[in-house]
Amino acid sequence: MMHQGFPEPISNLINLLSQLPGIGEKNATRLAIQILKNSTEYSRSLANALIEVKTKVNLCNNCFCLTADNICKFCSNEERSNMICVVEDPIALIAIEKSNEFKGKYHVLHGTISPIDGIGPEDLKINELIGRIEKESINEIIIATNPSVEGEVTALYLSKLIKPLGIKVTRIAHGIPMGGDIEYIDELTLGKAIKDRRPI
Amino acid sequence: MMHQGFPEPISNLINLLSQLPGIGEKNATRLAIQILKNSTEYSRSLANALIEVKTKVNLCNNCFCLTADNICKFCSNEERSNMICVVEDPIALIAIEKSNEFKGKYHVLHGTISPIDGIGPEDLKINELIGRIEKESINEIIIATNPSVEGEVTALYLSKLIKPLGIKVTRIAHGIPMGGDIEYIDELTLGKAIKDRRPI
Repeated sequence: MMHQGFPEPISNLINLLSQLPGIGEKNATRLAIQILKNSTEYSRSLANALIEVKTKVNLCNNCFCLTADNICKFCSNEERSNMICVVEDPIALIAIEKSNEFKGKYHVLHGTISPIDGIGPEDLKINELIGRIEKESINEIIIATNPSVEGEVTALYLSKLIKPLGIKVTRIAHGIPMGGDIEYIDELTLGKAIKDRRPI
Repeated sequence: MMHQGFPEPISNLINLLSQLPGIGEKNATRLAIQILKNSTEYSRSLANALIEVKTKVNLCNNCFCLTADNICKFCSNEERSNMICVVEDPIALIAIEKSNEFKGKYHVLHGTISPIDGIGPEDLKINELIGRIEKESINEIIIATNPSVEGEVTALYLSKLIKPLGIKVTRIAHGIPMGGDIEYIDELTLGKAIKDRRPI
């Protein structure tokens, strides 16, 4: 391994960095050398941030998004509407929040139903979602899982579970991305876009 | 910016990670989330490694490679021959050491002569190299700067400076990489390989 020639503190840092996803050993070596060149202040700040992220961040007790409090800023915001947008993970939540189109609450499943990986509905925050529907008098559930096989299966499962409760269940639209060129869109997406066409 | 929706400890970590070279904001977000998923032990180890690398690693007083001691393991090894391999930076040193072909000492210039960036010979560890030649009774200097314009200029400069001292100065060979396919090698390298051909 490349880093074996370095002094131990450097090879140790390279080792730890290369455990992160998408960071190979060469990349980790480059990063370690850059960190060495950066100020001591930078290393201190990064070290602190690493500790703080593990000690201060937890899941919201209600919607299971990432928060530094017991209840997140979305759940505790009285002005948010009685809709819940259901997402797979916290990054999807942030992406939707950034779109500025949704002013309701969220619920993070922390995964999707995936029998091949041994993940069933009981492994996701689904019971907790059902529990919230009545308690928060929710009137619509928007399912924003990814358009993957697992995401679709999970959306279908949730819809079958929630519709009988008399709650409106919707799925975010799939189709041609804005600014996308029809010529270059994959045929699955194009087919979906034609099937889901709407009057103008 | 994407990370503004995250709790402060996470967005802080994303901010710091995205200051590293080649780590964009999306990548930094992915890394921060992974760090959050990893064990607390991992964060602690990485935080320690960051501090240690800045407090324990310094440059060798003699050859200016990275070391945790005053004098590095290469300079203090009596069995190393009286040759010095001159490199631009510590990563090049490790790469050459890994080749297992060189059993002499090293000297790290920490850069190359580059008038366009305002870097002259006096900004590199060149005086220190000259100082070592007599002191360590060096009999050959191998110049292993990169085959870039700056690397070549630096090699030429060093050669003109050192040859008058009666010391053998050599340059590492450039040509077709082992296992390389002549069909796909750039013409500059191929030209160099033909010019530098040697009897077999």
